[in-house]
Amino acid sequence: MGSVGDDRAEIADRIARLAHAQDSRDWDGVGASFVPDAVYVHPSGRLEGVDQIVDRTRNALQVLDASQHLIGSISVTVDGDTATSTAYFQAQHVREGTPDGDLYAIAGTYADAWVRTPDGWRIESRTQTYNWRSGNRDVVAR
Amino acid sequence: MGSVGDDRAEIADRIARLAHAQDSRDWDGVGASFVPDAVYVHPSGRLEGVDQIVDRTRNALQVLDASQHLIGSISVTVDGDTATSTAYFQAQHVREGTPDGDLYAIAGTYADAWVRTPDGWRIESRTQTYNWRSGNRDVVAR
Amino acid sequence: MGSVGDDRAEIADRIARLAHAQDSRDWDGVGASFVPDAVYVHPSGRLEGVDQIVDRTRNALQVLDASQHLIGSISVTVDGDTATSTAYFQAQHVREGTPDGDLYAIAGTYADAWVRTPDGWRIESRTQTYNWRSGNRDVVAR
Repeated sequence: MGSVGDDRAEIADRIARLAHAQDSRDWDGVGASFVPDAVYVHPSGRLEGVDQIVDRTRNALQVLDASQHLIGSISVTVDGDTATSTAYFQAQHVREGTPDGDLYAIAGTYADAWVRTPDGWRIESRTQTYNWRSGNRDVVAR
Repeated sequence: MGSVGDDRAEIADRIARLAHAQDSRDWDGVGASFVPDAVYVHPSGRLEGVDQIVDRTRNALQVLDASQHLIGSISVTVDGDTATSTAYFQAQHVREGTPDGDLYAIAGTYADAWVRTPDGWRIESRTQTYNWRSGNRDVVAR
Repeated sequence: MGSVGDDRAEIADRIARLAHAQDSRDWDGVGASFVPDAVYVHPSGRLEGVDQIVDRTRNALQVLDASQHLIGSISVTVDGDTATSTAYFQAQHVREGTPDGDLYAIAGTYADAWVRTPDGWRIESRTQTYNWRSGNRDVVAR
């Protein structure tokens, strides 16, 4: 078993990998970041289980030409085989040819609860809140 | 005592927690990031001691509806019980209803000197410099 | 030899130091991040060896008044004495007095391959891709 620094590093890494999976449209990779019965509390509603989480992520992102979930300001508190983390995201959404602008940025916080599994740390629950938005909201309209 | 990686992780974590404390208006949390006689060298002046640092932070942020201090590009150099770090910040400031725009972003560098205390790493001095700004400066006017 | 967490921390640190070197116009520091025969695959072409990499970086950045390479969403996979990493960058470019706007942001991904050397981890190859851009492209025109 590694040090507390190792656990923090693995959790920060997982948060980044989830962002990479979202932005590369790797839906299996998105799902693999969560335990099967994970809960995702989103400003627009509560998702229960990996299938709902992956479906919502796909629906939100697949209409876009590109997205980038830049993550920073990560803090992690490890308590044995569970952990909590707080991270800031700044998510850029790109849809080319949108009238009045191709970009819409949404920024906020991911507050995650984690559990150590045989395959590494996985998210049990994520609560996403918004902090600011900028650009053309039509980019994310469906 | 942990590894160098543990020290780096703890310091990066502390930088993030300070950002979270600023953005959640947790003034005690802001103060707890510094040693009592810490120095904060700000483009607009030099602050000495935690009380001055917390007061200036409160005055700058409490007029806002929201803020987000996104931290990235963190490097840390540990030397026994002291350390230095360099981190980039991109701070978004939100005041709804401001004529000509609700957002003002200020970005730059935190150059910090650290000391290991019985309660963990704390900031002895922070030097903040600006790199770029974007948006409506009236958002941060008082 | 340190833990996996130590290797990840050192690699994340190196990515940050390279960004700091770019933004402080420390060309030796830029070069020191790579092995001598490193390859840099850039959207505008392939660079071979540290001299080409440093020359291109200098040419791109020295015309600017300021730049900031904010790095986040870093994941690292260590395999003995080699490693790979994926990191997001959001690079702000500043040239004061540019008609129609002083700022141009370019954001994307660094996909790096690493090797452990006696002096620490160094980049063997970096592949840079773009994700989005915002602002006035004339800022980076030469």
